[in-house]
Amino acid sequence: MTTKKAVSKKNKKQSDHAPKITAHDLAKGQREISVSEFFTKNRHLLGFDNPRKALLTTIKEGMDNSLDACEEAKILPDIKINIEQVNNAEGRFRVTIEDNGPGILKSQMPRIFGKLLYGSKFHRLKMSRGQQGIGISAAGMYGQLTTGKPVLITSKISPKKPAHHYSLVIDTQRNEPKIIKDVEVKWDTKHGTKVVIELEAKYQKGRQSVDDYIEQTAIANPHADIIYINPEGEKIRYSKTSKELPVEPKEIKPHPYGIELGILIKMLHDTKAKKLQSFLMKDFSRVSAKVAKEICKKANLYEKARPTRIAAQEADALYKAIKLTKIMNPPTDCISPIGDELIIHGLKKQINADFFVSNTRAPTVYRGNPFLVEVGLAYGGDLPEEGLIRLLRFANRVPLQYQQSACVITESVINTTWRNYGLQQSSGALPTGPVILMVHLASVWVPFTSESKESIAPYPEIEKEIKLALQECGRHLSKFIKRKKKAAEEIKKKSYIKKYIPHIGIALKEILNLNDKQERKIVNTLTDILERSRS
Amino acid sequence: MTTKKAVSKKNKKQSDHAPKITAHDLAKGQREISVSEFFTKNRHLLGFDNPRKALLTTIKEGMDNSLDACEEAKILPDIKINIEQVNNAEGRFRVTIEDNGPGILKSQMPRIFGKLLYGSKFHRLKMSRGQQGIGISAAGMYGQLTTGKPVLITSKISPKKPAHHYSLVIDTQRNEPKIIKDVEVKWDTKHGTKVVIELEAKYQKGRQSVDDYIEQTAIANPHADIIYINPEGEKIRYSKTSKELPVEPKEIKPHPYGIELGILIKMLHDTKAKKLQSFLMKDFSRVSAKVAKEICKKANLYEKARPTRIAAQEADALYKAIKLTKIMNPPTDCISPIGDELIIHGLKKQINADFFVSNTRAPTVYRGNPFLVEVGLAYGGDLPEEGLIRLLRFANRVPLQYQQSACVITESVINTTWRNYGLQQSSGALPTGPVILMVHLASVWVPFTSESKESIAPYPEIEKEIKLALQECGRHLSKFIKRKKKAAEEIKKKSYIKKYIPHIGIALKEILNLNDKQERKIVNTLTDILERSRS
Repeated sequence: MTTKKAVSKKNKKQSDHAPKITAHDLAKGQREISVSEFFTKNRHLLGFDNPRKALLTTIKEGMDNSLDACEEAKILPDIKINIEQVNNAEGRFRVTIEDNGPGILKSQMPRIFGKLLYGSKFHRLKMSRGQQGIGISAAGMYGQLTTGKPVLITSKISPKKPAHHYSLVIDTQRNEPKIIKDVEVKWDTKHGTKVVIELEAKYQKGRQSVDDYIEQTAIANPHADIIYINPEGEKIRYSKTSKELPVEPKEIKPHPYGIELGILIKMLHDTKAKKLQSFLMKDFSRVSAKVAKEICKKANLYEKARPTRIAAQEADALYKAIKLTKIMNPPTDCISPIGDELIIHGLKKQINADFFVSNTRAPTVYRGNPFLVEVGLAYGGDLPEEGLIRLLRFANRVPLQYQQSACVITESVINTTWRNYGLQQSSGALPTGPVILMVHLASVWVPFTSESKESIAPYPEIEKEIKLALQECGRHLSKFIKRKKKAAEEIKKKSYIKKYIPHIGIALKEILNLNDKQERKIVNTLTDILERSRS
Repeated sequence: MTTKKAVSKKNKKQSDHAPKITAHDLAKGQREISVSEFFTKNRHLLGFDNPRKALLTTIKEGMDNSLDACEEAKILPDIKINIEQVNNAEGRFRVTIEDNGPGILKSQMPRIFGKLLYGSKFHRLKMSRGQQGIGISAAGMYGQLTTGKPVLITSKISPKKPAHHYSLVIDTQRNEPKIIKDVEVKWDTKHGTKVVIELEAKYQKGRQSVDDYIEQTAIANPHADIIYINPEGEKIRYSKTSKELPVEPKEIKPHPYGIELGILIKMLHDTKAKKLQSFLMKDFSRVSAKVAKEICKKANLYEKARPTRIAAQEADALYKAIKLTKIMNPPTDCISPIGDELIIHGLKKQINADFFVSNTRAPTVYRGNPFLVEVGLAYGGDLPEEGLIRLLRFANRVPLQYQQSACVITESVINTTWRNYGLQQSSGALPTGPVILMVHLASVWVPFTSESKESIAPYPEIEKEIKLALQECGRHLSKFIKRKKKAAEEIKKKSYIKKYIPHIGIALKEILNLNDKQERKIVNTLTDILERSRS
């Protein structure tokens, strides 16, 4: 009781004065947190939860960058990945990722690899693997955190110029690169980039492994040549199955329906357009002169008003007017599907199955962002009869390995009634059977549930498209399974009848008093009729 | 085929020259991404997925800050929360959170509310609700994004000084506050802070609601007085049940076992200590002179070496030596439990049940971070007999509302065999029965699975502690349930015997030829014996 009293007494005292521990005391601790410090402490948010996952994430970020760079420069990607165990150091690996891409300017190299939240992909609306400007620098930062070693980068932008080499670490307190070595080097290649990261890691085969990841990347990127040397020194090569680059996705302007009020206010403020009407036409996609006029009218705003002078109140009216105006869906050439044919090629190359089918949906829109869904399915053959089907998830051609149960793709597969298509399925579970199912979401902005980009958030528009694509493949699968069953029954019937034909021959021979030749003829004719009738 | 040929030809050409689209072209798009831009585009990572959750997250971030500030200044918190629907605006709400805390210095106000990754809690090892320096600015940023309205902050640091008012927005491109209004105001309070945020939101009762959240906060913070006015104008008050402030957690130095090599290198570089031995003793917790010497010896390093001159190679040896040296567990006064008694007080206040039990474990360590687990359980009474038990999860006294299935607390409850303790349970599910179960994890660094702080990552050390606490409560519950069952059986037996006593009386009367008085006496005596023997 004494303590209680003491406290209340103190409280009373406090209410007459400033508190004993004042705002001044608390202010002393306040300071800025750099984004590198933040993600060092929260490295699990970026996919560096544990040594095994850290290895996968590092490979993934490196390959994403290589593939993106090659495609942007219209080069068919040749990528080499090498994972070596560091001598005498249990649990330490050296990862090398090398590409034949366009290379990186010397001036850009330090910040691309040594600064978090730096890149070219965040601010535009165009499909690419990277979107955050965090990945590869985070991998370097993790390496530095666990081994103290810098990231080594070599890049060459033209056969006529020498390559440039940097060795750098991140100054996490400032989130800026600190250069340790900066030299010109000879590198016998036309152009490309090579990154070496040493990190604490664990190599283990099986599901969610680096091996798995690289194989799946090859399926979704048939235009890439991938050479992979694992820590056991085995060399695995995935050759191109296509010599065509994917259609280049175009960068688009935001669609008015996807915009939030705060962003609209910012755009009004930042625009170079002099008039409201031209602002709407130039800074957004799908706004014609007519549509722009209609929006202004509905907002009760003068179409020649200066955008920078639109007050908050008026921006709100404009925002509401946009929602009330019919505007065409955004253009969809900002995304580039793998395509039915190449999906099947990709699957066929890695999997020996009896039946393949794929379906690419037309692009559509969620929250103003264009996206499309593709599905590929392989059935039978070497695939195991027992157990759940194997689901391969992809986002912008990148395989997703973790957090399967939190992903809209998994949810959509579970919520499809596979019994209608000839597969067994318990409620709330994936179907069972000899099936590999591949689902690809391509979008200018994939709504990942975390920075580690492991699963996709459940937007209803996305779930709907996935289900439609699955159902289409399901119908084809169902026909194949039915045909296969029917064929199996035919063979069974045929073998029954075939067994009796010689007996019929003998019976007829006795009844009609035929010779051996005539008997043989009858048997042959009957067999022939059977073959023709049933096949 | 023509296209394919064309591409290969082009490829060949490319290999002699720099690619057509060069590194120079790609470099043009490269730029810095501010952390505000990043989280605006990824607002779901911070808990602003949808309007209902946005309302909860805003309240939560505001209350976290208020409670933390009061406790640091040793003030019993009085908090007022008001949610109003904005006139004539469907789906827009004005949230006000007011406290009697120490207030905030004028110079600090803009950045605390208008800059992401700014705060006093990230860089220290001490239990608090906030840890990232993102929350309240993110809430303001979401308000600004969805309504275009600034955040309004009023703060007063002493009864002798006027209050200061700021109205501000975040310049997302620079991640810096932009001040719109900056005035002194009269505020009739001794000291405290008031924040007003207008945002697009949805108010809905039930599970995961703001109402639920505030009620649970009251349970875990019995020393706080909370007044809550909901959008329907109802005023709900949760009074203090304790007049004692929680024991103040102490700030600690990092423990050598929890440190990563990269951090060790950075600490060696940044330290003010002149000698390796004193560096180990001063910059870490639990390193005595003897232990420091032992580490140096094992690392083959001179104990008087200058820390800033330790090379990477030597740091590695130091790192390994630390792992090989026996060091005491970190001190645990950096965390402050709610305590058995107050947990039960808190539960009793909100819930009418027959049985209450709680268990507070001794502090222990994961990855160098001290933590402790507390469990409270209420059984029977008004709680529903049917259905799964209700699980309340808390981290540093903050209720967790979303992502229940991804949380180590849920996992631990599911993996406990509740049948041993008298409850029904299907495999892989929560038990069923009239139970509310509260689990609290308190730590200097809670390993959340995302920035929105909704669930805790499954560290084995944490799971183990939770299970031990649950088992302890389970044993008490089991005794209570057995006693209750036994008591019910006794009552049943007693009522059987009671029924026969008058008949015995009649029989004895006849056999022994007794009068009515004697008969009554026998019946009373027998009844009395029964009462005494069974109760």
